[in-house]
Amino acid sequence: MPVQVSDSLQVEHRLDQLSQALNSGMFVHVRQMLQNMASSDIALILESSPPKARQVLWQLIDQDQLGDILDELSEELKDPLIRAMSPERVAKATASMDTDDLAYILRSLPDTVYKQVLQSMSLQNRQRVEQALSYPDETAGSLMNTDTVTLRPDVNIDVVLRYLRQRGNLPDTTDTLYVVDKQDKVLGGVKLADLLTCDPNTPISSIIDTDIESIPVGMSDSEVAQLFERHDWVSAPVVDSEGKLLGRITIDDVVDVIREDAEHSMMGMAGMDDDEDTFAPVVKSTLRRSLWLTINLFAALLAASVSNMFEGTIEQFATIAILMTIVPSMGGVAGNQTLALVIRGIALGHIGQSNARWLIGKELAIGFLNGLMWSILVFIAVLVWKDDIALASLIGGAMLINMTVAGLAGASIPLILKRLKVDPALAGGMVLTTVTDVIGLFAFLGLATLYLMH
Amino acid sequence: MPVQVSDSLQVEHRLDQLSQALNSGMFVHVRQMLQNMASSDIALILESSPPKARQVLWQLIDQDQLGDILDELSEELKDPLIRAMSPERVAKATASMDTDDLAYILRSLPDTVYKQVLQSMSLQNRQRVEQALSYPDETAGSLMNTDTVTLRPDVNIDVVLRYLRQRGNLPDTTDTLYVVDKQDKVLGGVKLADLLTCDPNTPISSIIDTDIESIPVGMSDSEVAQLFERHDWVSAPVVDSEGKLLGRITIDDVVDVIREDAEHSMMGMAGMDDDEDTFAPVVKSTLRRSLWLTINLFAALLAASVSNMFEGTIEQFATIAILMTIVPSMGGVAGNQTLALVIRGIALGHIGQSNARWLIGKELAIGFLNGLMWSILVFIAVLVWKDDIALASLIGGAMLINMTVAGLAGASIPLILKRLKVDPALAGGMVLTTVTDVIGLFAFLGLATLYLMH
Repeated sequence: MPVQVSDSLQVEHRLDQLSQALNSGMFVHVRQMLQNMASSDIALILESSPPKARQVLWQLIDQDQLGDILDELSEELKDPLIRAMSPERVAKATASMDTDDLAYILRSLPDTVYKQVLQSMSLQNRQRVEQALSYPDETAGSLMNTDTVTLRPDVNIDVVLRYLRQRGNLPDTTDTLYVVDKQDKVLGGVKLADLLTCDPNTPISSIIDTDIESIPVGMSDSEVAQLFERHDWVSAPVVDSEGKLLGRITIDDVVDVIREDAEHSMMGMAGMDDDEDTFAPVVKSTLRRSLWLTINLFAALLAASVSNMFEGTIEQFATIAILMTIVPSMGGVAGNQTLALVIRGIALGHIGQSNARWLIGKELAIGFLNGLMWSILVFIAVLVWKDDIALASLIGGAMLINMTVAGLAGASIPLILKRLKVDPALAGGMVLTTVTDVIGLFAFLGLATLYLMH
Repeated sequence: MPVQVSDSLQVEHRLDQLSQALNSGMFVHVRQMLQNMASSDIALILESSPPKARQVLWQLIDQDQLGDILDELSEELKDPLIRAMSPERVAKATASMDTDDLAYILRSLPDTVYKQVLQSMSLQNRQRVEQALSYPDETAGSLMNTDTVTLRPDVNIDVVLRYLRQRGNLPDTTDTLYVVDKQDKVLGGVKLADLLTCDPNTPISSIIDTDIESIPVGMSDSEVAQLFERHDWVSAPVVDSEGKLLGRITIDDVVDVIREDAEHSMMGMAGMDDDEDTFAPVVKSTLRRSLWLTINLFAALLAASVSNMFEGTIEQFATIAILMTIVPSMGGVAGNQTLALVIRGIALGHIGQSNARWLIGKELAIGFLNGLMWSILVFIAVLVWKDDIALASLIGGAMLINMTVAGLAGASIPLILKRLKVDPALAGGMVLTTVTDVIGLFAFLGLATLYLMH
């Protein structure tokens, strides 16, 4: 009987049962439970488990399931699990994997293990994998499978059907067979749907779709993902510089790229790697996060040294010190809004030379409008609170300056970083906050000092 | 001849050409250029254009292409373009769209326009769309197409092939035909690949995959996306509570959900709507962003009022005011790292009741370790800078307290918000920063005041 879908609640329920069984040492029971689960559910359970439970669970999983589960796990999790296995077991567990996924795993192994795993493979598998490994990471080549089924243009559907029945199966996620000439150059594609719905006497040449677009093997994986998204592809052929068919990319691998790219922006803006494991050990996590905190300490000390320049003003007038964090804080939030928008625009391929200047102008205008609005509001708030019209005017003026700068900086910093080949998602937030902190403090404390001098 | 893929550079080049032609008023030329482009490329160009150019381009696009282009545009862009069209033109442009996409567009139209568009449709289309509109937004039902092709279990492949040839075509992105009983209950699925590769005399019942999982029509679209990602599906059947087939969901629509969910986290953390248009008009953008800034102003005033409680201490000792921003800043960054990790974990379905406590404990431990490390470093930095061991100890102590709180708050705030049914991605950052600001200031200024009293 077909099963109704296991929704996340059910998975959580099973996770609870598993942890209980694990904690009470009922390993045989756990092994049985695992045998009855889909690989993807086991992968989810591994990803939702603390590191210790993960290693125990991994020991209890059937050898036959290991490959499928590895396929589903995120990179951060694969590494420690694979390193704890013998090279022979790795070779065996990965024998049935797609070439692109296997190459991805091998790439992350230490050199010695990597060579041992390769040696434990059958000759055919080894050649297949070595080929895949020759393409750089994060390119179309590294996403590609070589299991394409090709046709010649000069046959009828009937011939193709006989060939396919003799073949007996098709690779997963095949929706199109590629038509190639004698030099393996892609002439077009034939949809499975057309093979099924057209008369068997129809020649391939009359149902071939020659508008099919081929992906150059060196294209970046993010660009590949954009193309799949834009054209609603299920698979696409990959070709070398001469148009020769090398393999194909399928939507399931592209979905991972889309997810990773989007997560990269989000995690990057918070100062994290996108492959950070939610359940990584404490010390490892602490160290991975410290780079960002180090940079922030310098930024905070820089801001403090700006305040330090105005020590005299602060000594004279404690209220200024009390209010001085408001202007940088508002600038930081406004700038970050712009930054997030521009980083997403860059990731989606919406921002290029032709509209960058327009966008910066627009965000500058928003910054100025925001600045006007918030300088009036903060003027009123401070006037009501501190009953000091001079102080209220000073903070209002500083707000206008800082919000305008925030709009300009939020739009231009990621574009400048991109041109410098620095990842805007990773570095943008820190550079921006430093700018809005320093300008915000300078504006408020500087205006206050000028005022006090008169 | 098959074309090599148009990479983003080429799209940018064409965008440049188009803007030049537009700016010099060569509308006929622009119209010709547009006619030779794929709908998805035109959609990208519209998304990369400022609002004015967008409206002009829209007028120049062929009537026949409008539907396909609307399909590709993001929600924010569709609305103004559709509202500027007459209901008859909308009905005509959308006649060939998939039901789910059309329902999505209609949902966002004002009531009067919406009714007019429905009335301009053919009866068949109207019924189809009204059915789709009956499912709530962001559920499996709203993602679903009703164009399923079904089979009976008691026939041979040969019969199916004859039926398909008579039918003449299959809906886009069909990889599986569903086998149903007389009550339309899903019994399983048959892959197109199996229909092609098995002998025509094979009965359907022997190639049916009964392990196929059906999606309940009320499931949230994020859960649907997680299932597609986990199981590498291209399509999946949607059923009602009795297991009756209602339609199917295809990967192209799921990819949009995955992208939107991931963007929602990133944009939400920066205080933006995920459907914010990069090129929206200035005033509209300013107003949309002001809610977040209003909340931040209150948060900043709250932090200032904490400083205000320690006015006496700040008056006595200006250096304290100068250094008082460092502790909140470090706590904010550390807390945000944890927050981003937990929000992603929630979105991926990795965090549930069984591991939430473990995760909070882990992040608390990381916060404490971070606190120890940074309190020592900031102690040294301030000792070197200000040559004051008491001051250096005070800031070090405050750092330890605030970093520990930041770890605890970063992990528990999103989990609490989730339980309160508040979106953690949207509200988490602001709540967290307020906590780390207030605790950071309290810790540093409080410790300083205690010290000065002795």
